[in-house]
Amino acid sequence: MQRGRLYLVTSPSERLLETVEAALQGGLTLVQYRDKDTEDGQRWERAAQLCQLCHHYNALFLVNDRVDLALAVGADGVHLGQQDLPIAVARRLLGPQGLIGRSTTNPEEMSRAIAEGADYIGVGPVYATPTKAGKLAAGLEYVRYAAQQATVPWFAIGGIDTENLPQVLEAGAKRVAVVRAIMQAEHPTQAVQHLLRLLDQ
Amino acid sequence: MQRGRLYLVTSPSERLLETVEAALQGGLTLVQYRDKDTEDGQRWERAAQLCQLCHHYNALFLVNDRVDLALAVGADGVHLGQQDLPIAVARRLLGPQGLIGRSTTNPEEMSRAIAEGADYIGVGPVYATPTKAGKLAAGLEYVRYAAQQATVPWFAIGGIDTENLPQVLEAGAKRVAVVRAIMQAEHPTQAVQHLLRLLDQ
Repeated sequence: MQRGRLYLVTSPSERLLETVEAALQGGLTLVQYRDKDTEDGQRWERAAQLCQLCHHYNALFLVNDRVDLALAVGADGVHLGQQDLPIAVARRLLGPQGLIGRSTTNPEEMSRAIAEGADYIGVGPVYATPTKAGKLAAGLEYVRYAAQQATVPWFAIGGIDTENLPQVLEAGAKRVAVVRAIMQAEHPTQAVQHLLRLLDQ
Repeated sequence: MQRGRLYLVTSPSERLLETVEAALQGGLTLVQYRDKDTEDGQRWERAAQLCQLCHHYNALFLVNDRVDLALAVGADGVHLGQQDLPIAVARRLLGPQGLIGRSTTNPEEMSRAIAEGADYIGVGPVYATPTKAGKLAAGLEYVRYAAQQATVPWFAIGGIDTENLPQVLEAGAKRVAVVRAIMQAEHPTQAVQHLLRLLDQ
């Protein structure tokens, strides 16, 4: 986790591999494969391809939700939502080396995730986002809280792009996770470079 | 597998545990937890409860689709559809002792599942069923084919109940899997006893 300040969470795309590779070429070092709709057989194939690609670029690769897919493809870990498997259960299956992240939307979820042994947490949604439709934005206030209280690496997430990133950094974030800012960028390599420049300022 | 001629595949129910326990009391020895809609955290809890219940009654317990849930709760195996994980991948995660079943709807899928190492296969859907809405019934013809050709234990499945079970047995089935015939029975214990009586004739 220490080496990544920018975290790409993928969304379904016809150009999934190309987009992720372009992003890796821009210097991305953290990728999460997130795909709620595809059948498992195909999901496993894509996860295997993405894992190989990420490791080729020396980036960490995590799988959303699915510990079995993560184990099957040799991923570095999993990311679990609040309604997913308990962290302790995932830990038992993944072993002590596997990275486990947990989404959190408020201080109470943050404390619990850290107490349960999350290696990192997501902090958001900072802004409203179609990835979590219908979910109220937790806002910059929760980012400020995380900046004061979080004792594990944390990523601000939710509707973050090059436009609003300065505000998020201003609120105390040092790491961010994005979906659309990379997945829907016309030039993912440049998008990553731009985000990384802002993060490094 | 050898000990079970009747296989219950669960459907979502407010009385899931009660129904399964009543079925176990009727002599059921094989249960598969199938639940496509529930969030993973809750699914894990239910799977853990069902697994404990089944093992208490000395019945085998399998999980649909999810190898991680199966591993997490100590299930006896998984059941995989055609679009799910490859059998070899599941085998690697589950180990040699884990039971792996595969749904098949035609001779080609049957051969492949057996070649890939399935411990048992589903053969169906024999009749149209809401569990696989929009899927054409494979019919009794495929059951007759299985009776001649299958070299692993196989379960006729799809819309089977006490009414049509005699036809399915007539076509050569020795084992059947059901959903509604037990899950929606007014008295699951008696439903199981009735089905087992027919199977034993």
